[in-house]
Amino acid sequence: MSFKVRVLYDFQGEPGTAEMSISTGETLTVTRTDVGDGWWEGINSKKQSGLFPEAYVERIAASNPPSIPAPVLQPPNPQNSWGESQQSHHDDDWDDDWDDDTYSEIGNNHTTNQQSIYSNEPNQNQLSYSNVDIPNMGNNSIDNKGTVTKKSLNIFSSYVKSGLEGYILSTSPTLPVSKKIHIYREGDEIIGKWEVISNPYTVQITSPKKATKMGGLKSFIAYQLTPSFSNVEVSRRYKHFDWLHDRLMAKFNVIAIPPLPDKQVSGRYEEQFIEHRRAQLQEFVNYMCRHPVLSTCEVWIHFLTCTDEKQWKLGKRNAERDQLVGANFCQCIEAPEKEILSSLVDPRIEENINYVTKMDQCIKNLMNTAQDQQKKCGNMYKREFMKIGESFFALGSAFEQNQQGMYSKASVDVKNIGSTYMIIGKLYEEQAKMDWQPLFDKLYIYKGITSCLPDILNIQKMSEQKKKEVERTSQGQQTVLAEVRRRTDIITYTAFAELNHFQNERDTDLRLTMKTFLQEQLNFYKNIVSKLEDTLQQFD
Amino acid sequence: MSFKVRVLYDFQGEPGTAEMSISTGETLTVTRTDVGDGWWEGINSKKQSGLFPEAYVERIAASNPPSIPAPVLQPPNPQNSWGESQQSHHDDDWDDDWDDDTYSEIGNNHTTNQQSIYSNEPNQNQLSYSNVDIPNMGNNSIDNKGTVTKKSLNIFSSYVKSGLEGYILSTSPTLPVSKKIHIYREGDEIIGKWEVISNPYTVQITSPKKATKMGGLKSFIAYQLTPSFSNVEVSRRYKHFDWLHDRLMAKFNVIAIPPLPDKQVSGRYEEQFIEHRRAQLQEFVNYMCRHPVLSTCEVWIHFLTCTDEKQWKLGKRNAERDQLVGANFCQCIEAPEKEILSSLVDPRIEENINYVTKMDQCIKNLMNTAQDQQKKCGNMYKREFMKIGESFFALGSAFEQNQQGMYSKASVDVKNIGSTYMIIGKLYEEQAKMDWQPLFDKLYIYKGITSCLPDILNIQKMSEQKKKEVERTSQGQQTVLAEVRRRTDIITYTAFAELNHFQNERDTDLRLTMKTFLQEQLNFYKNIVSKLEDTLQQFD
Repeated sequence: MSFKVRVLYDFQGEPGTAEMSISTGETLTVTRTDVGDGWWEGINSKKQSGLFPEAYVERIAASNPPSIPAPVLQPPNPQNSWGESQQSHHDDDWDDDWDDDTYSEIGNNHTTNQQSIYSNEPNQNQLSYSNVDIPNMGNNSIDNKGTVTKKSLNIFSSYVKSGLEGYILSTSPTLPVSKKIHIYREGDEIIGKWEVISNPYTVQITSPKKATKMGGLKSFIAYQLTPSFSNVEVSRRYKHFDWLHDRLMAKFNVIAIPPLPDKQVSGRYEEQFIEHRRAQLQEFVNYMCRHPVLSTCEVWIHFLTCTDEKQWKLGKRNAERDQLVGANFCQCIEAPEKEILSSLVDPRIEENINYVTKMDQCIKNLMNTAQDQQKKCGNMYKREFMKIGESFFALGSAFEQNQQGMYSKASVDVKNIGSTYMIIGKLYEEQAKMDWQPLFDKLYIYKGITSCLPDILNIQKMSEQKKKEVERTSQGQQTVLAEVRRRTDIITYTAFAELNHFQNERDTDLRLTMKTFLQEQLNFYKNIVSKLEDTLQQFD
Repeated sequence: MSFKVRVLYDFQGEPGTAEMSISTGETLTVTRTDVGDGWWEGINSKKQSGLFPEAYVERIAASNPPSIPAPVLQPPNPQNSWGESQQSHHDDDWDDDWDDDTYSEIGNNHTTNQQSIYSNEPNQNQLSYSNVDIPNMGNNSIDNKGTVTKKSLNIFSSYVKSGLEGYILSTSPTLPVSKKIHIYREGDEIIGKWEVISNPYTVQITSPKKATKMGGLKSFIAYQLTPSFSNVEVSRRYKHFDWLHDRLMAKFNVIAIPPLPDKQVSGRYEEQFIEHRRAQLQEFVNYMCRHPVLSTCEVWIHFLTCTDEKQWKLGKRNAERDQLVGANFCQCIEAPEKEILSSLVDPRIEENINYVTKMDQCIKNLMNTAQDQQKKCGNMYKREFMKIGESFFALGSAFEQNQQGMYSKASVDVKNIGSTYMIIGKLYEEQAKMDWQPLFDKLYIYKGITSCLPDILNIQKMSEQKKKEVERTSQGQQTVLAEVRRRTDIITYTAFAELNHFQNERDTDLRLTMKTFLQEQLNFYKNIVSKLEDTLQQFD
């Protein structure tokens, strides 16, 4: 069942592998499509045979060719990411794992993404969003328009402004919203609160597994996610998390998105690295589950539940064409009717910008300390205790020399001290995984949140400015003015709901983290005490 | 009551003080002798008045002039010490404290002395050694001859050999010995043992006090020593310890002398330094008290008991003229009659040289570790914990910012963690005084002992060589040969008695030190556990 394809992009095959180099415009005869991981086997005009990426070619004379596919393996460009891509991604890469290495080499660009959450350019492509069964969320069939095609690195860029302006001035089309997200007022406070999660759930990530494909040519790590509401395990790779994260960042400008762990190049398949990444992803997942809006959003539920390849591709396409993104997401929000006075809210916003900025610095500082201590546990502290242990042990051994076979209690005792300190040295090395590392991982999530919050508050400030501008220029047009005020208030309520959520997280989850850290430190020092006690008892 | 003196040595008065410069040969009129600290006040021929050192002048027309006095304040010579002085010290410096600074600037030359323990040049000055009342030692009136006038830095020097040769070949005069020191055999072993201390005692050093003299011109630290056998407090300064140590080093070539703490220039009057020096001197004193021979030797008892200035001077002179020094000290020793076979003892000596050398290295190594840890407790570890504490505390404070006067449990909790780690940091700083410093001080004593032991074993080897030489050359002269063998055996028994004493110390005192160290470390970590537990409880 061979067929012909045209090469759309140059591809340089890795020498010494089954890969084949192909050039744009070239025609290939495909001999196998079941290689897996997005690879096809084919023969070129010179009768050379080899593997090439499916996404780099298009079928000749296909009746319904897909939209122009973007190469997932980009030409070398370490800064590239989904969000910054100029091309829309229509390719279905459920299984095209061959680009995993590229992913891993992209490096640390999440922080960059974090700061680019407020921009979208709606277009007119209309696609139906797939129905996804999620618990207690009803049937969320949404007809959305628009695809996120560009993300700016600067929230003050024209994209940002236009996105926000479109919403505030109601020039963006009103989109059909299947489910409203409610914000409530708390007492007389301006503070908005997200509606409480009606059916809380958790998701456990277990058993990261190294798997290989294509006869060992490619290997990857699959994480098993089990949501408590379905109890159905789904298998996700880092690249799937990465795709999800990009979608979330594009959709939610007024909600802080927890960061993913950094992409890393080396040591990806080392057991320790894999287990740590699992723990990091678990933190990401935990935050998502705890957030009233994020925990119920479609793309997330799709990510958590989809086990079918076709459904996955469909859901993926729909998510990428979601129009309720950026400022337009606020169309889903139902906020309290009570109008907010600028004179009341403005100083609160300034105050909170200072607060979250200070918080951000302090979390960063504690993160640095945690990372520093984690490293020191594994090298400096361990080394110090090993050195202490060795000094005692050597002296104890020297005691033995002149014993002529006689048992020397002093020798045994001093050697015991030596062994104890060497054991304590090893305890230090192991301990960091129990206290400093989990603390760091948790702070990493909150650092991601606190670095989003000032942007959210700035969006509120820009809305407020826009409102005041309209108030100055549109005297008399009361209906326009009322709508602008209403939409600005929605953004204000949303910003405060997010701030309030952060405060709750701080007082519950982060506080629990601190307590757990302290408990682990306590256990560690208790362990040292116990080792010293045992050694001391042997003296008697 | 003025009188005239002739200046014996040039003295340069310190400008801006009451001191006066004087030149050799000059005649001064003494106007005051009660200035104290070895200073006199006088007027020179130019009618200038000022203070000058009493020891630098001699009284003109005095009926009984003392022997030529040596200046205690030497012309600048940082290597100078009592032991190396070419002149005998007849001056009575009970109170001439003015040279304290010079003492302190001499620096670390104990180790040098440690290696120069075997040399003496007897001379014919005869002086009666004062009677000193010491408990259960009988009347130790000894008529000795000889003054130690020179110490070699090399035990293999001609002085060493002649001193040893003189004893082995019985060419040294037989000296009157008032009290024999006994060595016993243990079972069938070659090992000799010192006779057990019949009346063990302790000496407590308490309340080091800073005192000033001459209206604040000179200040010094006086340590109060109280022996348990007399319960009479005596006041001694570091310089008195130093003099004692020099006497002990000169007298005992075959007994290891514990080292004094290093002389130090700076920080001498800081409280911490003074208390630490007290602890160091206490270790020195403790070792002295535990040693069967040293604890009963005259100069030591004189040092521990004398409270009268005249008696002190007399005892001092007698000690300096003691003839039972170096190899001649062995004339006091009564060793087992049983002859020792060279073939048996030689390998044991070699074995023990290796043993003590190894021990010496290991103790030095552990000392370095202890010193290193002591420093790190006060800076590195403290700094680390302070940094941890500050990071938590800052975050807790940032939590407070947005509370608008509301009580935040999270803020209080995280600040508590911060405070706890800062307290732990301070605990580290204080802790070193409880464990690492005492361990170091104890090891310092043993390091002094293990660096003496190879010299003692080498003396045995040289004796053995001398014996064999005599055996080869003096056939037939059985009485000579028997005496040489007997004296060599005495040295062998003595060396083994010292080794045996070291082993006992190792198994009792040093082992106890280790136990105490461990106990202190345990307490320290228990303290950390308790602090963390308290903080954790506040979370609930």
